[in-house]
Amino acid sequence: MNTIIQPRVLKGFRDFLPNAEAARKSIISTLEHDFRLHGFAPIDTPMLEYTEVLLGKGGGDTDKQIYRFEDNGGRDVALRFDLTVPFARYMAAHRAELYLPFKRYHIAKVFRGENTQRGRYREFMQCDFDIVGTDCASADFEILLLIVRSLESLQVPAIDVHIAHRGIFNRLLNRLGIQEHSAEVLRRVDKLKKIGRDQTHALLVELMPAQAADEIMSYIHAEGGNAAVLERITELAGGPDENTERLSQVLRFAEELGIQDSVVLDPSITRGLDYYTGIVYESFLRDLPEIGSVCSGGRYNDLASIYTKEHIPGVGASIGLDRLIAGLEELGALKDTTAAPDVVIICQDESLLGHYHNLADQFRAAGVSAEVYPESRKIPAQFAFAEKKGSPYVAICGLSEHEAGVLNLRRISDRTNFDGLSLEAACEIIRSAAPTTQVHTKE
Amino acid sequence: MNTIIQPRVLKGFRDFLPNAEAARKSIISTLEHDFRLHGFAPIDTPMLEYTEVLLGKGGGDTDKQIYRFEDNGGRDVALRFDLTVPFARYMAAHRAELYLPFKRYHIAKVFRGENTQRGRYREFMQCDFDIVGTDCASADFEILLLIVRSLESLQVPAIDVHIAHRGIFNRLLNRLGIQEHSAEVLRRVDKLKKIGRDQTHALLVELMPAQAADEIMSYIHAEGGNAAVLERITELAGGPDENTERLSQVLRFAEELGIQDSVVLDPSITRGLDYYTGIVYESFLRDLPEIGSVCSGGRYNDLASIYTKEHIPGVGASIGLDRLIAGLEELGALKDTTAAPDVVIICQDESLLGHYHNLADQFRAAGVSAEVYPESRKIPAQFAFAEKKGSPYVAICGLSEHEAGVLNLRRISDRTNFDGLSLEAACEIIRSAAPTTQVHTKE
Repeated sequence: MNTIIQPRVLKGFRDFLPNAEAARKSIISTLEHDFRLHGFAPIDTPMLEYTEVLLGKGGGDTDKQIYRFEDNGGRDVALRFDLTVPFARYMAAHRAELYLPFKRYHIAKVFRGENTQRGRYREFMQCDFDIVGTDCASADFEILLLIVRSLESLQVPAIDVHIAHRGIFNRLLNRLGIQEHSAEVLRRVDKLKKIGRDQTHALLVELMPAQAADEIMSYIHAEGGNAAVLERITELAGGPDENTERLSQVLRFAEELGIQDSVVLDPSITRGLDYYTGIVYESFLRDLPEIGSVCSGGRYNDLASIYTKEHIPGVGASIGLDRLIAGLEELGALKDTTAAPDVVIICQDESLLGHYHNLADQFRAAGVSAEVYPESRKIPAQFAFAEKKGSPYVAICGLSEHEAGVLNLRRISDRTNFDGLSLEAACEIIRSAAPTTQVHTKE
Repeated sequence: MNTIIQPRVLKGFRDFLPNAEAARKSIISTLEHDFRLHGFAPIDTPMLEYTEVLLGKGGGDTDKQIYRFEDNGGRDVALRFDLTVPFARYMAAHRAELYLPFKRYHIAKVFRGENTQRGRYREFMQCDFDIVGTDCASADFEILLLIVRSLESLQVPAIDVHIAHRGIFNRLLNRLGIQEHSAEVLRRVDKLKKIGRDQTHALLVELMPAQAADEIMSYIHAEGGNAAVLERITELAGGPDENTERLSQVLRFAEELGIQDSVVLDPSITRGLDYYTGIVYESFLRDLPEIGSVCSGGRYNDLASIYTKEHIPGVGASIGLDRLIAGLEELGALKDTTAAPDVVIICQDESLLGHYHNLADQFRAAGVSAEVYPESRKIPAQFAFAEKKGSPYVAICGLSEHEAGVLNLRRISDRTNFDGLSLEAACEIIRSAAPTTQVHTKE
């Protein structure tokens, strides 16, 4: 009866301690603010769905990774493994209630039972944003702009969004007569950044004549700035067409908005998946490219074809939140977020607890987060409590201060005392010194 | 191959459309702001846990309602059915990294395979806040204060938080010699509001002598204001003790903070569960009490006893978000939240799309959410799009406006035109008219 159960969590699953969770919430809240500013609307879908609904499209690899079971009602159900499939189902189900083009974002947990090595988790947060119901350069650009602007809002030091166009690449493959290998070619090209030029070439000649492999290498390694690269790949693919014009238009928009320095036309970007049909995106921290893309996506031809006959094209991207947070941390660009309140009100005299709660209430009304130490304990112990938590200030008020209608503030970092303050004066000091505390910033 | 899969969701699970999700997010964000102001820190735990860890304490009813299965690694796992059990496990696992008293909040989804009738869902959001590691009046009061303040922030018209004390009630039962039936007595008393006085009495006499039932009825129906009720139940329980003093202290704090009009000492509140040992809370919308408690909780003696030998007392409450939102809606107190952007920039001339994106970028920099209609289409159709979405304004800019560096704004509600505006002037108009739009308000 009194056996202790070990409080363990499943492999690949995580608890978040207060400061880590506060940091994650702060980042999500900044992203959401940007998504809303750009006209993207929030939606939500269930964590659990009919397996048939989730796996309808391409079981394949996903099958083994999925958390699938029979519920108590005998239904074959599964935890969602991404936010794209549920979004497709959502569009088919709610088409009549929504207006196209529809712009949505969705930040939520997904589940994959895959190997947990190398910072991969079985439960992780995805952060998707898409524009569906239109196939045009303006929408392709809008996703690019939102990638740049949202990462700017997170104060990511510098970002390079690499873009390419799958349609142009496919035309090259057609011209070379190897379109039937396109999926395999894409997969091998996708390894370029990892395995280098020579090995990629070696992999390609397994599939095609050496000259075709040379042309592909030349295509994916075009250099000399966006304009020169566009010219080169246009030529290799067989001249201008609507896809090269589309890419050109997106690049012109980027110039007009002044974000061209964050955009790299990089024909080696393919995004492996067969899924994409047009522009594709990968985004790298300029000072930490080795961690890989922190935001990827592209244009797809038909989102919801397995649920509806209506043709719904779309374009979107997904921020890899865990990787981005790890990257920001490594770059020292993670805002110093603490879950601790601005001020801990020391319980110096238990008979004044009502007054302490009153002070806390007034602090909060002024936007300063405050906590009352709830019972008598030696002052140094209470002070140590506030310090360990990470609160920047403690407030101290004994009987004489209470009678005089004042309080004393102590800054924990350097033990500076500010004595005999009014509540307003105390708020002033706290606010001026702690501008980054979560509660004050726009969320 | 082209079979259409029906885009259905599981019974008891829900999609959230943009406006509903925006409303829910706005409420959560207001609550989180308050929790943080009060010094409560966010945490997170996995959706999926070892079944042993979740069910260790009291399988009982929960067993049948749980989503439990074997994962691909052969582990017996289950979706969490509340946030309390994971919190207990979390405290045992991370005790060394946290400082007591620890105040946490957790707003997240939980899963129960129960009957879906009467607005109950199988996937729903819980919103818990607790103070653990201390057993004192100050913490009991702080939970009460946070219930009142957070519901005030949501502009709930009027709220009554009913409180009682399980320890005092248990003393009465002891005095009456029926402590061995206490769980069953609590369950029956808990029905008072539903079945009325007479039937409750009838249920009680099944368990005890008529005189004891009379005393219990007298106890749970004490009247005449908080002070009189406290006096009466103190007397019935056998005179003052630390529990009556605790309740008295909480009521004094409430007076000192000026929230006494929202606090009702109501000895009929028992919260059924054996779990609670001290103060208990239930909160009702004064103008809609029939929907039941929108925020309930209480003090428990030992949170994590199945995972650790350390004794961790606590007190907390949980907001029933679905019920609260339904209640606010019924009272017309749900802030009119729209997921639509403040302004849709009409695509009047496709050659100006870059300029439109520039305008949108400037709107956003000024805090106004903006969306560019991404391609040419008849103006009335674009206008209708903005209207159906719920955007309050469209911006129109043709070649001549572009040359003059101005734009025209049209208010959709009354078709008022504001012509020849600078961007600043347009922002001014939009901001002055749409003060409640999500993006502008503190979140």
